[in-house]
Amino acid sequence: MNQPTAIVFGVGSVRGVGGAVCRRFAREGYHVIATGRTLSKIEEVVAQITASGIGSAEAIRTDVTDEAQVIAAFDRAMNPGPGREPADVIVSNAGNNALIDFTKLTAAQFEDFWRVGCYSGFLVGREAARRLVPLGRGTVIFTGASGSLRGKPGFAHFAAAKAGLRMIAQSMAREYGPRGIHVAHIVIDGGILGDRLQGAYPQMIEHLGPEGLLEYDAIAENYWMLHRQPKSAWTQELDLRPFKENW
Amino acid sequence: MNQPTAIVFGVGSVRGVGGAVCRRFAREGYHVIATGRTLSKIEEVVAQITASGIGSAEAIRTDVTDEAQVIAAFDRAMNPGPGREPADVIVSNAGNNALIDFTKLTAAQFEDFWRVGCYSGFLVGREAARRLVPLGRGTVIFTGASGSLRGKPGFAHFAAAKAGLRMIAQSMAREYGPRGIHVAHIVIDGGILGDRLQGAYPQMIEHLGPEGLLEYDAIAENYWMLHRQPKSAWTQELDLRPFKENW
Amino acid sequence: MNQPTAIVFGVGSVRGVGGAVCRRFAREGYHVIATGRTLSKIEEVVAQITASGIGSAEAIRTDVTDEAQVIAAFDRAMNPGPGREPADVIVSNAGNNALIDFTKLTAAQFEDFWRVGCYSGFLVGREAARRLVPLGRGTVIFTGASGSLRGKPGFAHFAAAKAGLRMIAQSMAREYGPRGIHVAHIVIDGGILGDRLQGAYPQMIEHLGPEGLLEYDAIAENYWMLHRQPKSAWTQELDLRPFKENW
Amino acid sequence: MNQPTAIVFGVGSVRGVGGAVCRRFAREGYHVIATGRTLSKIEEVVAQITASGIGSAEAIRTDVTDEAQVIAAFDRAMNPGPGREPADVIVSNAGNNALIDFTKLTAAQFEDFWRVGCYSGFLVGREAARRLVPLGRGTVIFTGASGSLRGKPGFAHFAAAKAGLRMIAQSMAREYGPRGIHVAHIVIDGGILGDRLQGAYPQMIEHLGPEGLLEYDAIAENYWMLHRQPKSAWTQELDLRPFKENW
Repeated sequence: MNQPTAIVFGVGSVRGVGGAVCRRFAREGYHVIATGRTLSKIEEVVAQITASGIGSAEAIRTDVTDEAQVIAAFDRAMNPGPGREPADVIVSNAGNNALIDFTKLTAAQFEDFWRVGCYSGFLVGREAARRLVPLGRGTVIFTGASGSLRGKPGFAHFAAAKAGLRMIAQSMAREYGPRGIHVAHIVIDGGILGDRLQGAYPQMIEHLGPEGLLEYDAIAENYWMLHRQPKSAWTQELDLRPFKENW
Repeated sequence: MNQPTAIVFGVGSVRGVGGAVCRRFAREGYHVIATGRTLSKIEEVVAQITASGIGSAEAIRTDVTDEAQVIAAFDRAMNPGPGREPADVIVSNAGNNALIDFTKLTAAQFEDFWRVGCYSGFLVGREAARRLVPLGRGTVIFTGASGSLRGKPGFAHFAAAKAGLRMIAQSMAREYGPRGIHVAHIVIDGGILGDRLQGAYPQMIEHLGPEGLLEYDAIAENYWMLHRQPKSAWTQELDLRPFKENW
Repeated sequence: MNQPTAIVFGVGSVRGVGGAVCRRFAREGYHVIATGRTLSKIEEVVAQITASGIGSAEAIRTDVTDEAQVIAAFDRAMNPGPGREPADVIVSNAGNNALIDFTKLTAAQFEDFWRVGCYSGFLVGREAARRLVPLGRGTVIFTGASGSLRGKPGFAHFAAAKAGLRMIAQSMAREYGPRGIHVAHIVIDGGILGDRLQGAYPQMIEHLGPEGLLEYDAIAENYWMLHRQPKSAWTQELDLRPFKENW
Repeated sequence: MNQPTAIVFGVGSVRGVGGAVCRRFAREGYHVIATGRTLSKIEEVVAQITASGIGSAEAIRTDVTDEAQVIAAFDRAMNPGPGREPADVIVSNAGNNALIDFTKLTAAQFEDFWRVGCYSGFLVGREAARRLVPLGRGTVIFTGASGSLRGKPGFAHFAAAKAGLRMIAQSMAREYGPRGIHVAHIVIDGGILGDRLQGAYPQMIEHLGPEGLLEYDAIAENYWMLHRQPKSAWTQELDLRPFKENW
């Protein structure tokens, strides 16, 4: 009985969705490949998993906006070493966010948000399709946001990227679902009580309070749940929001 | 430690979503109150649960389009007997479907589809709000369908009812979520491999094949999953469809 | 050259959408049949059209939730007298609105909102289909609202009715569009600066100010525009909102 | 009384939406600036307008994915010469389409579709906001497509770009609507009977027939209509589809 493998793109802090998803699958016996831009951060995620005995994991420094690096990460994920199955769980979690006045948004900023929020998902999604279609199975999950569905002042760049990502997920689901690959999109509709928000918008945490924010481990649970869904009833999209949020 | 209680409205056959949801919660230790129009059917659902040792259940014949009967069922659900907690899981599952040419649709048919598909959800939802708000907790799940989101030829009556039901769920979620009540809506986007379809449209089962249909037990799993979601990350809506469906 | 005919259901005041739509089509040479529940009001709409020389119109008292009365109004609309064409423009504009706490909503109130906001649209839509399909042409326009798309606290009854109406429009469009009948749905996303709001929620007018409200004549323009669209590029749905509204 | 000015980005053939929009505004007395990548094509559009006496127009060769060129075109549009008003109508119409197997889509192709379909809209939209906000008026219209709303097999690249563009329009509408600028998005839901389709997918024209396609002049009418809407009732989004299309 080989060990199953999962690869998560866009892992930042241990206190964030990417790290939590890594832990969640590791806890179920998966060998988890954590990829992210900052080696120290993904190594911390891996160390937390292996040191605590949660399970097995490895870190691969990957710029998810770099085609060659994404392909290289998949090469490893599909050949994860003896006693392990090729990855059948692929998570595309890269993303960032910032409030920027539309008239002051530079072309470079607009493009950068697209590279991280949308283009990265294309690179991961296409590679997932290439590798999973021959296997006829697997789960591909994309992390979305409120901006995936709605544009609003100061977030055009973010929404443009995230809405694009959602279309990649939807196009893939329609094409690869019937071939046995579960493609899902999770709309995280609110702020996440983690390192990113703490670093960038601490006043938002204070303003909304813990009940107005999402916990990353609670979010990660849904990635695992989606992977477990039997193929007779697959979810393509679900939203997640904190109970106190007033929409 | 008291036994928790769940009540499911719109239970038909053991081979259907309502019956499957009853079994799913019974398996987790819930005392399940199965309500439906046909006593023999809900008694079969209860017998299957109790005889097999899955758990505890009872049947209450309830026409879910009758206000007094819905209230009476809630009276029982909130006072389910010694050693049991008031119901904190409410499922509104009533519904029917039929392809009817729009120009031939009678006013009585249009109204009947609304009574079963939408008005019933109002009666259940309002009563759930009345009973759960004072408790400050609970889960209310509504069963939706493709028609909840899209109208198409021959299904105006069905879509009109189901889209209305979805708005009840959404209005309730916005209002009662912040008060600790999880209100969710499940869009079942496809035919269900169960008694209803077998009886009414056997040719559809033959045409789509088992892989083009949803299994009721797989569907029911999601009702349980939604109930278990921690309140920091609640789903308001998710879709379910068979992997072979081509949208 | 015969005079064309239009029939508008749900005409209230001269200072409202129904009255404005009547005027708009009369101005284009249409004989307009204004129907509504209150004879004095529709007679005022007709008087305004005929006395001012705008055009020709007649009033038929019609309870749009009464099947026989809707059919009778169509009987007249399709036989509008010598020198006139059968109606090729049908407008379904009935509706009402009120903020009601969900737990206090009576079953009778919920049903009443459905009768006026959804069932009436079914009666009008079905009759329109029956009469227009043989002609192979015509325009059917339904008046929607914010609630057609979103549920929110205190408006479950309204949203449930309006979302249902939208599905009727959508189902009809898919079925009868290809047969030459233009079925459209207008989402009026905001308060209307007219008699209804003035009577029921004068404080809302004061709060939003004229720039935060829609003008009925501006709204009516879109009904005319939709009717004029060539069949090679038909709109099924458009939204209307005042420029000051902040969504 | 000065002549008003309009600028249209993404003008291709005289037999296409861009060319038709130029003609439509010229016919109303607008001085129209037609911009596009191919000088011969936009000069043909201009020649058709000026030679036929429809009105006045000029061509500016502009690669709409080049920031400096977009800014330069706006510089001209806002200073269009003596006797002319700064442009108050801005149309973002660039786009292309092609069916490409997702696994074979190159990174360069994905990026190119984004540059033409989304990034161009950002450059135009941002510049429009910068120029129109100080004036407190103006109309900005974006051309969308079926892919703006739905992803499907073989069109992930197209849908990702177009859904992103839609979010730009929506974000702008929410921010600049209240400042007097009408931002609208037109979802063209079908094939257009014009040069582009004729060149790239002639078999689609044959397959669908003229009744299954949209006519560019009929489409252009809606750009004019949107511009004319009084600010008390603005449309943010409308769809256009040929009557024969079966969704």
